[in-house]
Amino acid sequence: MLSARVSLLLGILFLASLSVSLGISHRGHQESQEESDSSGRNNPFYFSSDRSFNTLFKNQYGHIRVLQRFDQRSKQIQNLENYRVVEFKSKPNTLLLPHHADADFLLVVLNGRALLTLVNPDGRDSYILEQGHAQRIPAGTTFFLVNPNDNDNLRIIKLAIPVNNPHRFQDFFLSSTEAQQSYLQGFSKNVLEASFDSDFNEINKVLFGEEQGEESEQEGVIVELKREQIQELMRHAKSSSRKTLSSEDEPFNLRNQKPIYSNKFGRWYEITPEKNPQLKDLDVFLSSVDMKEGSLLMPHYNSKAIVIMVINEGEANIELVGPREQQQQQQEESWQVQRYAAELSEDDVFVIPAAYPVAINATSNLNFFVFGINGENNQRNFLAGEKDNVMSEIPTEVLDVTFPASGEKVEKLIQKQTQSHFVDAQPDEQEKGRFVY
Amino acid sequence: MLSARVSLLLGILFLASLSVSLGISHRGHQESQEESDSSGRNNPFYFSSDRSFNTLFKNQYGHIRVLQRFDQRSKQIQNLENYRVVEFKSKPNTLLLPHHADADFLLVVLNGRALLTLVNPDGRDSYILEQGHAQRIPAGTTFFLVNPNDNDNLRIIKLAIPVNNPHRFQDFFLSSTEAQQSYLQGFSKNVLEASFDSDFNEINKVLFGEEQGEESEQEGVIVELKREQIQELMRHAKSSSRKTLSSEDEPFNLRNQKPIYSNKFGRWYEITPEKNPQLKDLDVFLSSVDMKEGSLLMPHYNSKAIVIMVINEGEANIELVGPREQQQQQQEESWQVQRYAAELSEDDVFVIPAAYPVAINATSNLNFFVFGINGENNQRNFLAGEKDNVMSEIPTEVLDVTFPASGEKVEKLIQKQTQSHFVDAQPDEQEKGRFVY
Amino acid sequence: MLSARVSLLLGILFLASLSVSLGISHRGHQESQEESDSSGRNNPFYFSSDRSFNTLFKNQYGHIRVLQRFDQRSKQIQNLENYRVVEFKSKPNTLLLPHHADADFLLVVLNGRALLTLVNPDGRDSYILEQGHAQRIPAGTTFFLVNPNDNDNLRIIKLAIPVNNPHRFQDFFLSSTEAQQSYLQGFSKNVLEASFDSDFNEINKVLFGEEQGEESEQEGVIVELKREQIQELMRHAKSSSRKTLSSEDEPFNLRNQKPIYSNKFGRWYEITPEKNPQLKDLDVFLSSVDMKEGSLLMPHYNSKAIVIMVINEGEANIELVGPREQQQQQQEESWQVQRYAAELSEDDVFVIPAAYPVAINATSNLNFFVFGINGENNQRNFLAGEKDNVMSEIPTEVLDVTFPASGEKVEKLIQKQTQSHFVDAQPDEQEKGRFVY
Repeated sequence: MLSARVSLLLGILFLASLSVSLGISHRGHQESQEESDSSGRNNPFYFSSDRSFNTLFKNQYGHIRVLQRFDQRSKQIQNLENYRVVEFKSKPNTLLLPHHADADFLLVVLNGRALLTLVNPDGRDSYILEQGHAQRIPAGTTFFLVNPNDNDNLRIIKLAIPVNNPHRFQDFFLSSTEAQQSYLQGFSKNVLEASFDSDFNEINKVLFGEEQGEESEQEGVIVELKREQIQELMRHAKSSSRKTLSSEDEPFNLRNQKPIYSNKFGRWYEITPEKNPQLKDLDVFLSSVDMKEGSLLMPHYNSKAIVIMVINEGEANIELVGPREQQQQQQEESWQVQRYAAELSEDDVFVIPAAYPVAINATSNLNFFVFGINGENNQRNFLAGEKDNVMSEIPTEVLDVTFPASGEKVEKLIQKQTQSHFVDAQPDEQEKGRFVY
Repeated sequence: MLSARVSLLLGILFLASLSVSLGISHRGHQESQEESDSSGRNNPFYFSSDRSFNTLFKNQYGHIRVLQRFDQRSKQIQNLENYRVVEFKSKPNTLLLPHHADADFLLVVLNGRALLTLVNPDGRDSYILEQGHAQRIPAGTTFFLVNPNDNDNLRIIKLAIPVNNPHRFQDFFLSSTEAQQSYLQGFSKNVLEASFDSDFNEINKVLFGEEQGEESEQEGVIVELKREQIQELMRHAKSSSRKTLSSEDEPFNLRNQKPIYSNKFGRWYEITPEKNPQLKDLDVFLSSVDMKEGSLLMPHYNSKAIVIMVINEGEANIELVGPREQQQQQQEESWQVQRYAAELSEDDVFVIPAAYPVAINATSNLNFFVFGINGENNQRNFLAGEKDNVMSEIPTEVLDVTFPASGEKVEKLIQKQTQSHFVDAQPDEQEKGRFVY
Repeated sequence: MLSARVSLLLGILFLASLSVSLGISHRGHQESQEESDSSGRNNPFYFSSDRSFNTLFKNQYGHIRVLQRFDQRSKQIQNLENYRVVEFKSKPNTLLLPHHADADFLLVVLNGRALLTLVNPDGRDSYILEQGHAQRIPAGTTFFLVNPNDNDNLRIIKLAIPVNNPHRFQDFFLSSTEAQQSYLQGFSKNVLEASFDSDFNEINKVLFGEEQGEESEQEGVIVELKREQIQELMRHAKSSSRKTLSSEDEPFNLRNQKPIYSNKFGRWYEITPEKNPQLKDLDVFLSSVDMKEGSLLMPHYNSKAIVIMVINEGEANIELVGPREQQQQQQEESWQVQRYAAELSEDDVFVIPAAYPVAINATSNLNFFVFGINGENNQRNFLAGEKDNVMSEIPTEVLDVTFPASGEKVEKLIQKQTQSHFVDAQPDEQEKGRFVY
């Protein structure tokens, strides 16, 4: 029978959207802490791993967490209100049980290896995804996810675009476990008997295990899988490792192509909506960026994309420049520029609004991953460096009146940097005495 | 002269959006009433015909009613906020007077026959629409609607997508009647005189009938039409009955094609956005479904479409499975699955969110009609039955850990049902002793 | 060093969105003042030049102003919430300093001549724009704007579609002036030194002028430019005067083509999304309309476009017909038609919702400019006049029951006007005795 209180995880996202305004997290700003934080305000663009996620499910085999709502953090990124971010981690030899959700997902493997199976009414497709592989899971697609490795954890980040409500979505699991009940149990005895052409006791025994207690329920939605079960599942999977980025429905590999920026300090891999139909449909670009310890991604801004950045490995200091967040709606007169700085580490998320200048300093070897919302035709405008530098395209006559020094002096300053995109963050420490103080 | 208080129906939808939160209606849930309604909450997806509509106009010849706002019922269907549903009924030999609205309409004939005339600045097109015919009326198109039959009432349902405001729209009538004034009367004497190159007394007499009182105003916006007037209007109409579904602007016939699902228990007719440019533009699919008394539409979910279902004829019990509606925003911990059940009868409306599993039991011969919002590429995932059954595509190894019984036993249960889509809702009553209890 | 309080115009739009609900402006309604304003309500569609703009910047060389939020004026135009209007004026021989914004702009030259330069990371394009020229500036594009004329002021109107937030956007200037600081100053000493491969003192001296005070800051973001600087900049500009309307990225000339309506009383120039890829992308049409003193643009409505009208030169009386604005959400019963009248003069803005009938009477020679939001496939439905008159397409049988007079009499009235679109607003004064009173 349907228990009186069919409890939950089912309602995966609803709870998440509630507690958002509580846990606004912030980390100090180095140098200019007293300045950019003098108002006592927190950094609305920085979502620390330890305080900005709501745990939807957690057991010994892994967890599912969802990031706070972006639009509840700051009006400055209100247009992210239809987007949510989900983190999934699982131990070796485990399975995330079959389920579907009322959201489109764009899934990226940050670490480890996954066997992803999409189940449709007329068949199924299994793919092996490695680090840097991405795949769209259309709303309502039943899927399950295996970590087939014997040693490595699997870590996945999903961009979720809900269908029924702008910010909320929901996972529907087929299984009854200790954590939640099968959605099939929501139907009445009559409906189930007619649908399965079977007696209700039989259905209960086979699908829900309630009657006899002899077959124990799973502990939750992430479960252990035996080596031979995994091998059987792997046999029918298509490897996507040979794929590049063109197929309509198959996973694509972010790192299986030439980086768009590359030098000895860093490499930037990117797939744009123009190059991939799954991304075109969602109007999102994806980037994966490697930076060496001590390097700097030079100041730049995205022309139209709002960037959601996820730190995968390493640590960094980020500086974002924007208007001061309003404290009171009444206060109109005192507009101020503000540096939104943060020290980022693994699993942290940072949002870079379109047109806001930003610079990133890798304080250790660093890998981060980017969802670029509103990504089609986005242009990255660098403000320093040899290539892609918007400042170097301003004519001398205009530089002349734009800056206090003469146009020639400004051009000389702009042209001094011979690197592009990534540079050494502390050139003077490496080449002492190069400048006179 | 312009009367001091031009009162009226003109403002058709504005009032409708006000009283929405009041009349939330609900019908009991059979079997599991104490369970799914134990919280005292109502069913936010069920809009009963008698309590969920606001009457915009009503006289002896017919009425116009608009359904409450979806988004004011439940956050779970907030993404329906740009959609409204309008019901129109008229007696034989009547005319709904010429008007336009600031909304796109998708009109479907539920019962009877209509002569629909779309008037554009450069011409007009008249179509005869029968039961199951649909037609888009682009925003701002002046149109009028005749019930040309001598005996049968006309019943129409319209999906409205407002242009100036997400939820509100407005009908603008050319006529002055007892119920409202012509929008032409909003203009000043000077503007009218110059525009019609005529004296204001003449304009008043011909268009508004205010001056002399000799020609009586119509009682309202639905009026009687003489047999010979109807015949004259019918002469120039194109019959759309021979049409199938391809023309850009013409009506299309939902039932003039092969059903997508069909057996002795039911038939499902559907036109998707992929097949019709009018529907593609609105991203809506249309279905018309017949079910025999005692049959069951088996549990299934729509992958991405939010379905607005209108009962045309007959009665049914519906079971929808979703998360428990939140009572208080504070209450985060107690997530529960809930069966949202309702007894549906003629003119009732029910909303099925994307990804929410649903089953429908026809308690009499039944016909219902469906608007599938966000309909492009929607996939119907059945959870039981031979065809289109997503459960039958899950591999044995995964069934094994998903359900308490062994994978083989689960497969045996899944494969027992040999019907697809529609089945007998009470097979055991027909074939006694088939199962051992 | 980064000053403790970096003040600034930078935050251009944020303040604008605050004071909106205060300054609702209104002008009297002539004839029917006691009627259409009897409730004491103001005209929510009328934005007077002197009370509806917020000044973002102003100095001796020009100003930048932003119009109040549309959606805060009236629910009737809530769907304009993603659009803002900006006015820019500058004196001869001036430059608006290089900057970018987190909004798409559609820029139109109302008066004077502009040298517009779009700067991209890989090059720049300069265009000379004359009166009636329009150009899209994609979000995030760095640009500067010269008034190259020796005598004429430059006046520009921009439609802004923000990227990060529905209503707010922000200008980011490269320069530090007395009015705001360079966004480059938001970055830390370390980031700037590494990026420019230079000492911080040098950077400060060349870009910010803070250290030594010897080179004075500009007074604000609009600055004087020397004749020879302008000539040098003009040398590389492409003239867009020979262009018509087809190029992907170049400016297009609204008035360099045949008017769509034209007679001795007025001329209507229009470019639709169907004809221009920049407009298609934004789903906006543009019109420029000339009317002779004493002429009338006859009553008509736009089928689906919401029109934002800017008076460029001259004065006019406008009459808009719609439902009475709701005073209280509770008051449901008293729906009324209302004439929203206003006396318009230079720089005033007026919004015409889709499907709302409107007529405009030029009380002096008049030029106005129009942004048609949601403009693709919009149809202008005239209610009087020979051509494009939706009333003349209604069949006699229907006119018969729609209006108090017989169908024949109504047709006679409708056909009396032999002009189309524009007519003399006071024909009886010119041809006395033509009608008997």
